[in-house]
Amino acid sequence: MNILNHPKNILNLEDVVTVAKNLLEQFSETSIQRDRDGGTPKYERDLIRQSGLLSLSIPKEFGGLGGEWHDILNVVRIFAQGDSSIAHVFGFHHLLLATVRLFGEPDQWQHWYRMTAQKSWFWGNALNPLDRRTTVRFLEGWYEFSGKKSFCSGAIDSEMLIVSGVDECSDILLIAAVPTTRSGITLYHDWDNIGQRQTDSGSTIFERVRVESKDMLLHPGPLSTPFASLRPLIAQLVFISMFQGIAEGALQEAKLYTLKESRPWFLTNIASANEDPYILRHYGEFWLQLESLRLLNQNAIAKLQWAWDIGETLTAQQRGEVAVAIATAKVAATRTSLDITNKIFEVTGARATHAGLRLDRFWRNVRTQTLHDPVEYKIKELGQWLLNERIPKPSFYS
Amino acid sequence: MNILNHPKNILNLEDVVTVAKNLLEQFSETSIQRDRDGGTPKYERDLIRQSGLLSLSIPKEFGGLGGEWHDILNVVRIFAQGDSSIAHVFGFHHLLLATVRLFGEPDQWQHWYRMTAQKSWFWGNALNPLDRRTTVRFLEGWYEFSGKKSFCSGAIDSEMLIVSGVDECSDILLIAAVPTTRSGITLYHDWDNIGQRQTDSGSTIFERVRVESKDMLLHPGPLSTPFASLRPLIAQLVFISMFQGIAEGALQEAKLYTLKESRPWFLTNIASANEDPYILRHYGEFWLQLESLRLLNQNAIAKLQWAWDIGETLTAQQRGEVAVAIATAKVAATRTSLDITNKIFEVTGARATHAGLRLDRFWRNVRTQTLHDPVEYKIKELGQWLLNERIPKPSFYS
Amino acid sequence: MNILNHPKNILNLEDVVTVAKNLLEQFSETSIQRDRDGGTPKYERDLIRQSGLLSLSIPKEFGGLGGEWHDILNVVRIFAQGDSSIAHVFGFHHLLLATVRLFGEPDQWQHWYRMTAQKSWFWGNALNPLDRRTTVRFLEGWYEFSGKKSFCSGAIDSEMLIVSGVDECSDILLIAAVPTTRSGITLYHDWDNIGQRQTDSGSTIFERVRVESKDMLLHPGPLSTPFASLRPLIAQLVFISMFQGIAEGALQEAKLYTLKESRPWFLTNIASANEDPYILRHYGEFWLQLESLRLLNQNAIAKLQWAWDIGETLTAQQRGEVAVAIATAKVAATRTSLDITNKIFEVTGARATHAGLRLDRFWRNVRTQTLHDPVEYKIKELGQWLLNERIPKPSFYS
Amino acid sequence: MNILNHPKNILNLEDVVTVAKNLLEQFSETSIQRDRDGGTPKYERDLIRQSGLLSLSIPKEFGGLGGEWHDILNVVRIFAQGDSSIAHVFGFHHLLLATVRLFGEPDQWQHWYRMTAQKSWFWGNALNPLDRRTTVRFLEGWYEFSGKKSFCSGAIDSEMLIVSGVDECSDILLIAAVPTTRSGITLYHDWDNIGQRQTDSGSTIFERVRVESKDMLLHPGPLSTPFASLRPLIAQLVFISMFQGIAEGALQEAKLYTLKESRPWFLTNIASANEDPYILRHYGEFWLQLESLRLLNQNAIAKLQWAWDIGETLTAQQRGEVAVAIATAKVAATRTSLDITNKIFEVTGARATHAGLRLDRFWRNVRTQTLHDPVEYKIKELGQWLLNERIPKPSFYS
Repeated sequence: MNILNHPKNILNLEDVVTVAKNLLEQFSETSIQRDRDGGTPKYERDLIRQSGLLSLSIPKEFGGLGGEWHDILNVVRIFAQGDSSIAHVFGFHHLLLATVRLFGEPDQWQHWYRMTAQKSWFWGNALNPLDRRTTVRFLEGWYEFSGKKSFCSGAIDSEMLIVSGVDECSDILLIAAVPTTRSGITLYHDWDNIGQRQTDSGSTIFERVRVESKDMLLHPGPLSTPFASLRPLIAQLVFISMFQGIAEGALQEAKLYTLKESRPWFLTNIASANEDPYILRHYGEFWLQLESLRLLNQNAIAKLQWAWDIGETLTAQQRGEVAVAIATAKVAATRTSLDITNKIFEVTGARATHAGLRLDRFWRNVRTQTLHDPVEYKIKELGQWLLNERIPKPSFYS
Repeated sequence: MNILNHPKNILNLEDVVTVAKNLLEQFSETSIQRDRDGGTPKYERDLIRQSGLLSLSIPKEFGGLGGEWHDILNVVRIFAQGDSSIAHVFGFHHLLLATVRLFGEPDQWQHWYRMTAQKSWFWGNALNPLDRRTTVRFLEGWYEFSGKKSFCSGAIDSEMLIVSGVDECSDILLIAAVPTTRSGITLYHDWDNIGQRQTDSGSTIFERVRVESKDMLLHPGPLSTPFASLRPLIAQLVFISMFQGIAEGALQEAKLYTLKESRPWFLTNIASANEDPYILRHYGEFWLQLESLRLLNQNAIAKLQWAWDIGETLTAQQRGEVAVAIATAKVAATRTSLDITNKIFEVTGARATHAGLRLDRFWRNVRTQTLHDPVEYKIKELGQWLLNERIPKPSFYS
Repeated sequence: MNILNHPKNILNLEDVVTVAKNLLEQFSETSIQRDRDGGTPKYERDLIRQSGLLSLSIPKEFGGLGGEWHDILNVVRIFAQGDSSIAHVFGFHHLLLATVRLFGEPDQWQHWYRMTAQKSWFWGNALNPLDRRTTVRFLEGWYEFSGKKSFCSGAIDSEMLIVSGVDECSDILLIAAVPTTRSGITLYHDWDNIGQRQTDSGSTIFERVRVESKDMLLHPGPLSTPFASLRPLIAQLVFISMFQGIAEGALQEAKLYTLKESRPWFLTNIASANEDPYILRHYGEFWLQLESLRLLNQNAIAKLQWAWDIGETLTAQQRGEVAVAIATAKVAATRTSLDITNKIFEVTGARATHAGLRLDRFWRNVRTQTLHDPVEYKIKELGQWLLNERIPKPSFYS
Repeated sequence: MNILNHPKNILNLEDVVTVAKNLLEQFSETSIQRDRDGGTPKYERDLIRQSGLLSLSIPKEFGGLGGEWHDILNVVRIFAQGDSSIAHVFGFHHLLLATVRLFGEPDQWQHWYRMTAQKSWFWGNALNPLDRRTTVRFLEGWYEFSGKKSFCSGAIDSEMLIVSGVDECSDILLIAAVPTTRSGITLYHDWDNIGQRQTDSGSTIFERVRVESKDMLLHPGPLSTPFASLRPLIAQLVFISMFQGIAEGALQEAKLYTLKESRPWFLTNIASANEDPYILRHYGEFWLQLESLRLLNQNAIAKLQWAWDIGETLTAQQRGEVAVAIATAKVAATRTSLDITNKIFEVTGARATHAGLRLDRFWRNVRTQTLHDPVEYKIKELGQWLLNERIPKPSFYS
């Protein structure tokens, strides 16, 4: 536990999994209550700040831990086993760091990387390309953002925000990095959904928010090159690892319940629930689904890392093949997590619906987040790839 | 609405559906809030009392409406579209009236039928054969019930209870009808589950509760004849109609949302969400499932009515064939309601997870109640029937 | 068996099921060999001619048996249990009689009805609206058909053909009834497919075939009114009953095999295969699917009969609701028959793949015929109905 | 093609895939006809003999190619794309070589390895532990095998056989390697099944067949150690790679058909079948399934190689974890291959049922071979592993 007290001095890559599991243990103590309450997990966010894990994706030369994508997404998965809201905002923090890396210039991201590593900044999201209510005006050397933005996950209690708006002249999407405390930004505590209840994915108002040119991510800018277009793929991987983690967490609770609490159906002569042929069948199906997902996710992460390492010379075709691997894993993650979180009740029995256990939270969490973009269109992308050998067209969702 | 003010004077069988739909409308105004709060829907229960529907299953000669099983279960289904907790306790009320009819002697049930019709009594359940913690002692002409009982749906705010206990000598299950206010009975407000939150399915304590012989259902007694064994089949049908109603209610809300709120996926050139080929595909699947369930349920209800009309001469084989029809509908109802309440979100989109809509309540309600008895063993029963031509063995669950 | 010798004298509606089952028994003696050989089941077709069943759908006033649609489709289903090729051409015979009834004038169909009842004519199909290679020219009082036509089920060994062609001027579909022996018609024995091997669904060549005006079905003509548009719905019902029959036949063979031949898996301590929990589970699923299909089909047939009885005043909306019921049953029939014919092997075991049993023929038969029109677009129709309350647009496939 | 003429001189591991694909091309020219005919693919077996691939699994020190398991199983997969009967007997040849390695002593298997590499021997199977009709008698220094044996895949046209029998005293399973021409062995050409029609999986009669002690595989003997128990796992992997190859081959044919032959459904305004949203959806599902299988199979093969490399010190727990990985892939391979070979027709359309294409052979092949051992018990094994952390008990099927 000393690790947590002085993270920046002693945390290194080898300890990341241990630290993440320690944090998970602490999150789990209160996750049921916090699912009930909603709101911002301030205490838990501060534990993450102290842990040093916010610099996991930052290269060592900028003061970070130099983790690769499998390190980062592994922590997302571990957190999601017990607290998928925190997994979400933690994953998005690293997605937003990748955003400045991919959309910005070296001077920009290197600065922000150093500051984040040094000060344990938490980054929050106010980039929502489907919500076009925020407009941007260019004014003598600076930019002014005005309007509303929904689904701003992790914006509350962040130090930095990635914000987006539509250029009022060109209708082009513009993205910037701004301090959360910047004048004119109001974050609303209006996120109250059936799941992912502590992601603070509420709305934000920008009232004539001034953004300096140096904070605008204009070169290369959003989705401008195959390499820059890795950004949405990282977002997808955050969700995939999160869904896998939720399924693992749900299954772990179900397993303990079956072993310790469930009773064999009274009309059988089976001695204990864990020998019931149909309960075993369910667990067999769970295993098959989860193992497939594990391998698909692992494969997708490896492909992303390969593309990330290639850097700016990444071709559209190479990027497309990464996108296919990730879309494949996304469909599996969506289905597996929905199926397992729905069916765990069939291996536990009626008593497991007691509200004290809140076993439904796993399903509510995946049900909420799997709607981020429609899985049907991911399947269609896979069909386009197999049948017509077309790679997915880059967008903020593919 | 005058109908509701003077139910006993003017309600007749032709008006039942209208009255039920009026009630549903009133229930629906507060059902989201009451799902949040849990507890006893006292106001709504009183509306039902006033409506006259508590005597729906009572023959006209005893002052009731003389409804057949399809009338009764149709009201269960209608209520469940908007408030499945009320549907549950309303269905159980009629199940408990059938219980005294099937397990008791004419003198007994005729009396209770008359009283219920006259005074709009609400019957509650404290019969749980799997919970053997309540024992019965025979004492010089009367019986004493002592112990605990879980899952007592509708016991709170009832006038009469059906209670069960195990004879401390013979280990035989004994069942009685007692006024809820009988000394020694304590009903706990301890039902707090993820779904069916206003069914009051909590626990009851019996402390040396005195039950007169005339209130014991000894002849023919529980499950003693094929006809008496119709009782658990009626319980199954209550659930089937309830699950069908929940699926219908969920679908109705989803449909309105798709038509009025959902947006077409931005990467398509489809003009509105209701023309999306994949959304149409989901609705096509919903229709197929629901239409199958509707026919299976209708078929099962007709078979029950046929057996009910045969009466005491019903043979074991005849009862078995009714049981098969009901088990078939039960499996379909379980799966269809789980599937539709899970998948409605895929035809509405991310915004439909807003907690204000509480669209997850449909899934939570079926997820909770479908665990009453394991669906896998119903499927096995169907297999025994098809392959080995064995009818289900009567029990409190088949 | 005397029934078969003098059918026209003694067959009446009450005997139809008995006669059909007798025929099925005879068909089944050779159906495995005939599945191997393909070709025309001349002997079996003659048995049907002799049985009197070719006039089953013809009203008594024209010398027929006056069967309703459930009588006719029931025979299709019974035949399909053992010989789905014969079921197909038998069903199509009655579909073609309905075609002259629906598309033609009383003078026309009454004549053909009388002749068919009197002479036991077998009608064959050369109407394929998707194959536009046959053109029609109008020549001073008569019509000339020239061109090719594929998928002409039951054309070989028929007495009468329904033929279609495209008017070379107006591009309108024209339909006529002509004797199969008419000069210029050549039927090819070129049907060699993986299933439905004795339906003779090969190709036909029309070489300047002369058709008199009186044999053209011009008033009201094809799909010209809601009532005339019942024709494709009858075609769909023929397939539905056929698929149901195939599934029933497959299941019957599987059941006998499991009971008499299958061995329990050696790593269990189960005494016989019919007690294996997973084999019972499969049979339970089969039962559920088949029972759903049975009710959906029954419901669809009843709706068709209702519309048929309404006659020419049938409205588009009424016809649409029949179409929905039939589309629902069609999807269920397609899936259930494919699933059961595929999975029967899992309840029989490896030895049941012996070619002598030819247990694969059930799957090959449904696999072939279920492609008649794409099931996905039937599901879409159901979605249009549920979501947008649009009835299916009449076509030769809906 | 020179490679094939002088295989033993020039074939090395790098050329294996090229050679296998060349062979596949030759097999595919006649595979439809040979599926029709059944019987022994003598010409193709000789091509394999000449190719040098029969020594693929033999270490270089014994004159073989020194292939690892992924090399061997990759060839099985490639062959299965066009000819799964040949894939089967080719895979079994290497399984039988592994059998002498795992069950026998170094003197034994090294001899047989050298002879096989030198003379291009083809090994056939007469080991069927579930068929206990062959008994073994010990007679003064030699053994005598008598009785019948079914499912002897690849026995015809082999040079060596692995045979099994039950010791008439101890009831223990005994296994030996004997020349196929040994006096008293009669191989029957009685394999005539719906699929895998050229695997010659017929029956064998042993009439007092003399087997020398040196040819008995007694030390360590069958399934005697964790390492020896890898044998059934290799058999499972042969099937898995074969099923994957069949699915790939079916999909390849379907894809070409959709692109070149299929027509868009006439009631849509879609320009070509490959843009149909539902056809794309099917291909998307196919991709997802196949990609999951590909990774599960790859993972299972790597685990087997790891265990194989450990050798005799392999622990029961280590072997158990390999068995779990293989069981997982087996379930996926069974389902994926059945589903794809069944559903390809829905993306091709009715004309693809033409017997000339024989597109049903893919389904018939997997349907036949997937019954080797019941998939339900593999799922149960996965459940035992996940829930109860029990590893599969070694047997000839796990």
